[in-house]
Amino acid sequence: MSAISRRLVLKERPRFQIPTAKCFRLEEVVIPNPGQGQIRIRTTWLGIDPNLFSKVKKVSDQSKPIAIGSVMYGATVGRVDISNHPDFKEGDVVHGLWGWQDYHVCDGSGITKISDDGLRPSYYLGALGAAGFGAYLAVNEVLKVNQGDVVFCSAATGALGQIVGQLSKLKGAMVYGAASSDEKCGLAVSELGYKDCFNYKAPDFERTVSDRIESGIDAMVVSAGGKTFDATFPMMNVGGRIAVCGLMALYSMSQLPVTPDRSFMILNEILLKRLSVRGSMVLDKLNTEVHARFMTEMTSWIISGKIKPVEHVIEGLENAPNALRGIFDGENLGKSVVHISD
Amino acid sequence: MSAISRRLVLKERPRFQIPTAKCFRLEEVVIPNPGQGQIRIRTTWLGIDPNLFSKVKKVSDQSKPIAIGSVMYGATVGRVDISNHPDFKEGDVVHGLWGWQDYHVCDGSGITKISDDGLRPSYYLGALGAAGFGAYLAVNEVLKVNQGDVVFCSAATGALGQIVGQLSKLKGAMVYGAASSDEKCGLAVSELGYKDCFNYKAPDFERTVSDRIESGIDAMVVSAGGKTFDATFPMMNVGGRIAVCGLMALYSMSQLPVTPDRSFMILNEILLKRLSVRGSMVLDKLNTEVHARFMTEMTSWIISGKIKPVEHVIEGLENAPNALRGIFDGENLGKSVVHISD
Repeated sequence: MSAISRRLVLKERPRFQIPTAKCFRLEEVVIPNPGQGQIRIRTTWLGIDPNLFSKVKKVSDQSKPIAIGSVMYGATVGRVDISNHPDFKEGDVVHGLWGWQDYHVCDGSGITKISDDGLRPSYYLGALGAAGFGAYLAVNEVLKVNQGDVVFCSAATGALGQIVGQLSKLKGAMVYGAASSDEKCGLAVSELGYKDCFNYKAPDFERTVSDRIESGIDAMVVSAGGKTFDATFPMMNVGGRIAVCGLMALYSMSQLPVTPDRSFMILNEILLKRLSVRGSMVLDKLNTEVHARFMTEMTSWIISGKIKPVEHVIEGLENAPNALRGIFDGENLGKSVVHISD
Repeated sequence: MSAISRRLVLKERPRFQIPTAKCFRLEEVVIPNPGQGQIRIRTTWLGIDPNLFSKVKKVSDQSKPIAIGSVMYGATVGRVDISNHPDFKEGDVVHGLWGWQDYHVCDGSGITKISDDGLRPSYYLGALGAAGFGAYLAVNEVLKVNQGDVVFCSAATGALGQIVGQLSKLKGAMVYGAASSDEKCGLAVSELGYKDCFNYKAPDFERTVSDRIESGIDAMVVSAGGKTFDATFPMMNVGGRIAVCGLMALYSMSQLPVTPDRSFMILNEILLKRLSVRGSMVLDKLNTEVHARFMTEMTSWIISGKIKPVEHVIEGLENAPNALRGIFDGENLGKSVVHISD
């Protein structure tokens, strides 16, 4: 065990929309020791989530970005290595929100022990974390996906999309998706429950989607926006439901495109087709009854093999900033997690 | 009784979006006589509805406009003057969908007798017709307006808006609206249940709205779109609900405005504020349980004076085309109805 703890500090906000490695600085500090009633956690995994974006850049009046010079933080998994707290013992595997750093000292509040169910601890950052819960809320609560529904999900092989696909199929729906390469599309079909998946970088993407989803779309999960949304929104069936869970394409825009303003067309489609469009954020539902139900159900689906989470593992704390950039560039296949230590 | 029956025939589709008087031709024909099992109706009132627009111009793939040379038709009230049908007798007041003409002969299907409740028969074209039902669906079914909600309705003094205001107030909500003149705004406040109403033609409209609805908006009825929507959409509170019931401002556009495309901003607001946006059309709910409940409740509210429908009466069949144009120009104060005969 080294005598220093490394940590990533926010050095500057991104000039353009996507945070790059130069926004962060790797610092070394003496490993902190826990005081009375405290625990020390050795960080093992960091979760790379799109919402980390709002921690480095103000995206709305509601978002409070972290201060320049502060340690970057997010969903994290670790192992207790010293405990002066009655509820924790050395070796406990825990998850929570803490810094992008090797060691974290705290009083244990907001830290949850991971039950000994044999699942990979990193799943608590993905399929059992915000992405999985977001997919669960979208499919089960917002869209109420049912047997026979035609579902579309943008970013089919992303952290959220991979669960949307598998979960919708579990509900008896027919699921279509989009991804950024033929390879990813292949995986979506072979592993993630998708009936078909379309490469949105292909020149004939829009026509392919409209040719191959003959029956139109009953329910849609929007996580990316952009080209995929433009191609599929006109294909919604009368009475269709849309869950807006994320807009990664928007984050990477530096300005609105100067094209005819289609906001009215969107409202007009909503009217003519009696669509129902709802924003969904996991934040609102953490620690509620539905969250408890999700944890129980998702754990059993993973154990039984009904849902198989795919992970994109990046090695080393120092590579976390590039991992964050990578999810906006679509580099990940499945949930992006950074491996810090064993 | 004259020996001729006048009728308005669609001569040509509007070159630009709004139908004008020159799109119609007034014809004279011999008054038709009913055959065995038929009735003849003397038209007394025509209802002027925004959806008549889709009868003269194709607005979507779903809409089937009437053929050039055919008689224009819409929601209508009349009195049976000859009956060869066992279910109808001379003097029965009826409503239904038939031509913009003095006399109508039919076999009685789709024709509904108006109960003898002492209400103005023309109310069956407004407060008890599509506009009233649209307002009822929006307030009760889509938005589920409750005590203490802050509600906003564009076109406060229009056929739908006047009922939205009164109905929302009845539910204990605080209702704000917009209209095209200070005079209309005054009426919205004094007669239609609005707490405040803003002239959307005033240069400081946007600022006034944001200054005076301090608590933000919980529930919104969109019937116009355009400037009013632009000013109020950013004021939606977290968890807010929007019912899209009409987009009159869109109908009068000849092309989409070439400004930055805000469709993403709309999706982003839906996401960040977890809004719920739903299209609502009365068509889907006619002759359902909720329609029967609406008829019973609205009738009793009107009889008891809890809801006071406002009508904008235009005299003479020949003026129906101008009345149709008028609702797009905001000439009406309340529900536009054309008086054909007593």
